Amino acid sequence: MRREIGVAVIGTGFMGKAHALAYKAVPNAFPDSWKPRLVAVADVSEVGARQAAEQFGFERATTDWRTLLDDPEVQVVSITTPCSLHRDMALAAIAAGKHVHCEKPIAASSSDAYDMMKAAEAARVVTQVGYNYIKNPILKLARGMIQSGELGDITSFRGVHAEDYMADPDIPYSWRTDPQNGAGALAEIGNHIVSLSRFLLGPITQINAQLETVNKTRPVAQGSSERREVKVDDIARLMVTFERGCSGSMEANWAATGRKMQLEFEVFGTKGSLFFSQERFNELQYFKASNDPRTSGFARIEAGPAHPPYENFTVAGGHQLGFNDLKTIEMAEFLSAIEHGTPAFPDFREAWEIQRIVDAAIQSSAEERRIAL
Amino acid sequence: MRREIGVAVIGTGFMGKAHALAYKAVPNAFPDSWKPRLVAVADVSEVGARQAAEQFGFERATTDWRTLLDDPEVQVVSITTPCSLHRDMALAAIAAGKHVHCEKPIAASSSDAYDMMKAAEAARVVTQVGYNYIKNPILKLARGMIQSGELGDITSFRGVHAEDYMADPDIPYSWRTDPQNGAGALAEIGNHIVSLSRFLLGPITQINAQLETVNKTRPVAQGSSERREVKVDDIARLMVTFERGCSGSMEANWAATGRKMQLEFEVFGTKGSLFFSQERFNELQYFKASNDPRTSGFARIEAGPAHPPYENFTVAGGHQLGFNDLKTIEMAEFLSAIEHGTPAFPDFREAWEIQRIVDAAIQSSAEERRIAL
Amino acid sequence: MRREIGVAVIGTGFMGKAHALAYKAVPNAFPDSWKPRLVAVADVSEVGARQAAEQFGFERATTDWRTLLDDPEVQVVSITTPCSLHRDMALAAIAAGKHVHCEKPIAASSSDAYDMMKAAEAARVVTQVGYNYIKNPILKLARGMIQSGELGDITSFRGVHAEDYMADPDIPYSWRTDPQNGAGALAEIGNHIVSLSRFLLGPITQINAQLETVNKTRPVAQGSSERREVKVDDIARLMVTFERGCSGSMEANWAATGRKMQLEFEVFGTKGSLFFSQERFNELQYFKASNDPRTSGFARIEAGPAHPPYENFTVAGGHQLGFNDLKTIEMAEFLSAIEHGTPAFPDFREAWEIQRIVDAAIQSSAEERRIAL
Amino acid sequence: MRREIGVAVIGTGFMGKAHALAYKAVPNAFPDSWKPRLVAVADVSEVGARQAAEQFGFERATTDWRTLLDDPEVQVVSITTPCSLHRDMALAAIAAGKHVHCEKPIAASSSDAYDMMKAAEAARVVTQVGYNYIKNPILKLARGMIQSGELGDITSFRGVHAEDYMADPDIPYSWRTDPQNGAGALAEIGNHIVSLSRFLLGPITQINAQLETVNKTRPVAQGSSERREVKVDDIARLMVTFERGCSGSMEANWAATGRKMQLEFEVFGTKGSLFFSQERFNELQYFKASNDPRTSGFARIEAGPAHPPYENFTVAGGHQLGFNDLKTIEMAEFLSAIEHGTPAFPDFREAWEIQRIVDAAIQSSAEERRIAL
Repeated sequence: MRREIGVAVIGTGFMGKAHALAYKAVPNAFPDSWKPRLVAVADVSEVGARQAAEQFGFERATTDWRTLLDDPEVQVVSITTPCSLHRDMALAAIAAGKHVHCEKPIAASSSDAYDMMKAAEAARVVTQVGYNYIKNPILKLARGMIQSGELGDITSFRGVHAEDYMADPDIPYSWRTDPQNGAGALAEIGNHIVSLSRFLLGPITQINAQLETVNKTRPVAQGSSERREVKVDDIARLMVTFERGCSGSMEANWAATGRKMQLEFEVFGTKGSLFFSQERFNELQYFKASNDPRTSGFARIEAGPAHPPYENFTVAGGHQLGFNDLKTIEMAEFLSAIEHGTPAFPDFREAWEIQRIVDAAIQSSAEERRIAL
Repeated sequence: MRREIGVAVIGTGFMGKAHALAYKAVPNAFPDSWKPRLVAVADVSEVGARQAAEQFGFERATTDWRTLLDDPEVQVVSITTPCSLHRDMALAAIAAGKHVHCEKPIAASSSDAYDMMKAAEAARVVTQVGYNYIKNPILKLARGMIQSGELGDITSFRGVHAEDYMADPDIPYSWRTDPQNGAGALAEIGNHIVSLSRFLLGPITQINAQLETVNKTRPVAQGSSERREVKVDDIARLMVTFERGCSGSMEANWAATGRKMQLEFEVFGTKGSLFFSQERFNELQYFKASNDPRTSGFARIEAGPAHPPYENFTVAGGHQLGFNDLKTIEMAEFLSAIEHGTPAFPDFREAWEIQRIVDAAIQSSAEERRIAL
Repeated sequence: MRREIGVAVIGTGFMGKAHALAYKAVPNAFPDSWKPRLVAVADVSEVGARQAAEQFGFERATTDWRTLLDDPEVQVVSITTPCSLHRDMALAAIAAGKHVHCEKPIAASSSDAYDMMKAAEAARVVTQVGYNYIKNPILKLARGMIQSGELGDITSFRGVHAEDYMADPDIPYSWRTDPQNGAGALAEIGNHIVSLSRFLLGPITQINAQLETVNKTRPVAQGSSERREVKVDDIARLMVTFERGCSGSMEANWAATGRKMQLEFEVFGTKGSLFFSQERFNELQYFKASNDPRTSGFARIEAGPAHPPYENFTVAGGHQLGFNDLKTIEMAEFLSAIEHGTPAFPDFREAWEIQRIVDAAIQSSAEERRIAL
Repeated sequence: MRREIGVAVIGTGFMGKAHALAYKAVPNAFPDSWKPRLVAVADVSEVGARQAAEQFGFERATTDWRTLLDDPEVQVVSITTPCSLHRDMALAAIAAGKHVHCEKPIAASSSDAYDMMKAAEAARVVTQVGYNYIKNPILKLARGMIQSGELGDITSFRGVHAEDYMADPDIPYSWRTDPQNGAGALAEIGNHIVSLSRFLLGPITQINAQLETVNKTRPVAQGSSERREVKVDDIARLMVTFERGCSGSMEANWAATGRKMQLEFEVFGTKGSLFFSQERFNELQYFKASNDPRTSGFARIEAGPAHPPYENFTVAGGHQLGFNDLKTIEMAEFLSAIEHGTPAFPDFREAWEIQRIVDAAIQSSAEERRIAL
């Protein structure tokens, strides 16, 4: 019988629930995985903690996350609280010898991320950060095609992550717009496209960025006529150079009216090209340069059993994975790394690298110059 | 605390696993639902039963499905075995007072389906059949738009369900191609588009169909040079009239090279039109006739919180549901019907109606005439 | 220097203008073609004839089309008048020894079409009928792929031509809705998809059709409250068998709210499949069955120099042809047939075959039975 | 009767032919326009000049373009020669009092463009430059929506022009890669997206650019093993600020494997957003922010009679314009400006502005800093 592994989750919001749900789904889709046992859940709200415990079957609920760390039944801690709390929670969990999964962004600054990474590596615990979109089987295909040389030499990358949830200027000031929180479009969603670009193409060595605040003030509270100045970016544009030699651009935009999930990229190589959009994330568009010009064109590859671990969810092509399935893959890979004593990906080091890029972009924009990493 | 309800699943193939997985996911997405307790699983293969029990956490496994019916802990039975076994299993389960979920097609003929429906209605148990695609939130939107008159009078329907898993003529003869089994493209996948057309537009009163066998022989076994005549359809085409007054067409095709999940429809009304494809099932295309011609066009609606119960899975638009989420909605609705003593949908009566249409289409094709229902 | 050939056009409406424009464009795109000399234009309206002459440079204008036939300078006559006039005009032109291009539908009935075909063949003049969509370079590619066996054995065809210009029930009764005129959705636009299916797959041997009148009455004039019964079809659905062995379906619908040019088909073969829509007529979707499942998918082929005679219009791929360019190809091919003494396509015989299918569909619908051709 | 206007064309390549063809098509589509009389064509090749004369009907052909300028019958000169020749030809034509249409890019540098603009404005001749894509009726709609406030305040622009005709590293060194020629991806195709951004959003005030040479050497001739260093850009990326207050990004890439005509933009406003791709240039995607979230989405607007001057080409929606039709609109607007004594657009001043942006981008990249305009 599969071994159990004790899990605690801190936070019960959007991502807290997504973690609980994903841990529960792991054994169904990955029967050979260690089986998560939902030992405890913590939330500042007692009601929130109790409800989550009942909904997902945690054995106990608490308002004091520190108690989780003393619990010998807990081997894994998921941190899904606001970004500003990640550092202290992660350091405490690491000190207690727990493996730590932390939601993105890992921290409000790369120095915080650095401390977390160093502590984790010293303690030799397994860490992972919630860049869930790269868990997509069709993006594993994309990465494989790049790494195997199937696309030839990569010549260019163009990426974007645009949504519209902050487009309305009357959305109030909040933690989302508080610079102490690692806030802004780049820090909050732009790191997804940064993460994706690194997943596909590897390290970035130079950044030239411009950040912009479109909605320069916001109400201090819902409906209030008093407004407060916003200092974080609504839009960030980056021109980057990759260590492998090619260059590219990225954009983060949370004021992109009409866009709900425009996490897109296009990557061009000498032998082929790819286009992907999270709006249709069970598809990958692939142009193969050597095909007959008479019949060549971008082919719409549909996710299916040829793209592991799609088949863990459904045996037939064309059935499609959903967002929660990506989260399940993420947790299964995390648990697998713990089981096999191998690094997980993206771990705290990778998240630190992403955070460094965010920081460098902010610096580049402020200082109006290119920043080398 | 939520009440538990004991569930047994018969069969551990593609759909057996999908049921188990969906029952397990219900409480996560629908916290107010009764909570399924996975009491038992049955399979002809002892190994298969045991493995499924371990993977999904059934309390016991058996090779004798009849023992499930004597178990007072079991209130719900899911039948996911080959179609030819549905009738006997369902009648026994009903006789034992169980609520029954049966995979589609409900039976190999409408007379079998009739017996099942009559027994279930007499016993007043809740029944449901696995037409999972209509559980899609975006299709609930489509149905709502039709029922509310938002599209005006419906003038035309065009539907298709095409896949390519039987396109290769060297796929061997099997239960899929055995007429005793309610086999053929129409019976196996065409009933999905029939189900969808009825979900949207209501009863069908006339059918004019032509069925065709493209691959007229198949090997008796994988790699065998001996071939056996195939009598079931690879392609079925239907022209139908709906009771509401409009007409339409449907096609089933399991030899449609390149298509993995082309379950599509287009419905035209005097005030608007819709297009949908399961290939991109988190989207619905909507043309509103009254819009300014200068800026009107088919709008690509993305599934989101405005389309219940999407929000039960993820609170943000654009994140997308997967196939297994549709199955979870299906099971949640089934359990809700049991809890509230209301009919589930699509129940055995609805499945019988679908089966009657399949039978009538076969008859129409054979007798070369239109059949009134 | 290229030889000139004298052209006369009868009718100056949408298609009269399109013919004039196309004849003028031929030498630009096809410099080796005989050069059309616009000798004369005829219209019932004197103003209309004179304006067209001035706009397009016809040497003379007339209200009496018969005078064109006596003119020795005129070698080619284009007939673009309402369908009910085609027969007499064509027979007179043929009797005068002219080559005849006639707009579609060729006639109001297949018997009229038959007379025209017989006369033309006896007189050995070159004829062509305006099924312009099949002149598309990307459809020549499609046909070539089918004929060369690149798609393997063809197993299925699905076609539609849907528009919405007659969707509004308050569009008045007119020649479009007058059965004497070969009217109805099938006769007016459905013949395009019939033409296309024959272009790709060859003769049709059996038809099972249902025609339907959605808007059962229409005002006798714009804004009138008096309404007149409509007897022609708004929607026609056909199930057909092709001589080559495969079968298919077609739909014509001129009440398809939101659709402006949904002339679409999907053709499935054992080695590959194609999808095409006139809505994006510079593209062809191609699935190649033998590709690696990991990277296979429908490829979006963009029209370019690899698809003759695209290059006659622009030397670079991706630039795209417009509707008028299709018409120019049509006229160039007509003139080339005259020059080389070869049959043009689609000629009166082909148009008669199309008309027979329309007639057979009407009969099939009325008699509620399959009709063999 | 319409007045004639004498036209001469210099150059008979891709664009020389496109001009001739467009001039000839103007009277067909724009019957109220002055009618171009094709007086003369010049080409360095005598054969080329003579063939073009015959194909398009120029009255005379010459190898000496200067002779055109002495011809009193010539009122309009089209310059379609390589970019490095534009300046001298244009200045001579202007000195001779001719109206001048010049292909893009207007010149190899903004200082050359400046001289041309100054001369033209002093001589009060009408000028136009061949940024043909902005002549698209659907882009006139886009511009109108922005100017009328229909999209609210514009917050962001993202544009690209990517093709693959220089992707192959073995394409020889040529005038395309010679910096004396205003060469490089930015100068050759990037100016289209610059032109389009200005057409939609107005002046650009700041540029931050990075240019990159992907193929660092090329053969000195086809098949040669000797290679020469390339100094012009294969890829250019720009971050820009518009005078109206919003910012944006642009990319030019002529090594984008698989892309034939990816001239795309996305523009976001507070009340709506647009997406456009030249790959499907008869469509515009429009999201209207105020629509009901339940049914809102990007609407695919198809070009039709509601979008002038579409109707000049075909009276029915969905029929689509081709590339040559855009060129015809361009020439009709040029002739209309001459007739009415109004400025044409884009004129030499506009082209100079575009060229300044190209120059500033090159400078920004070289000096690694933002450049104010």
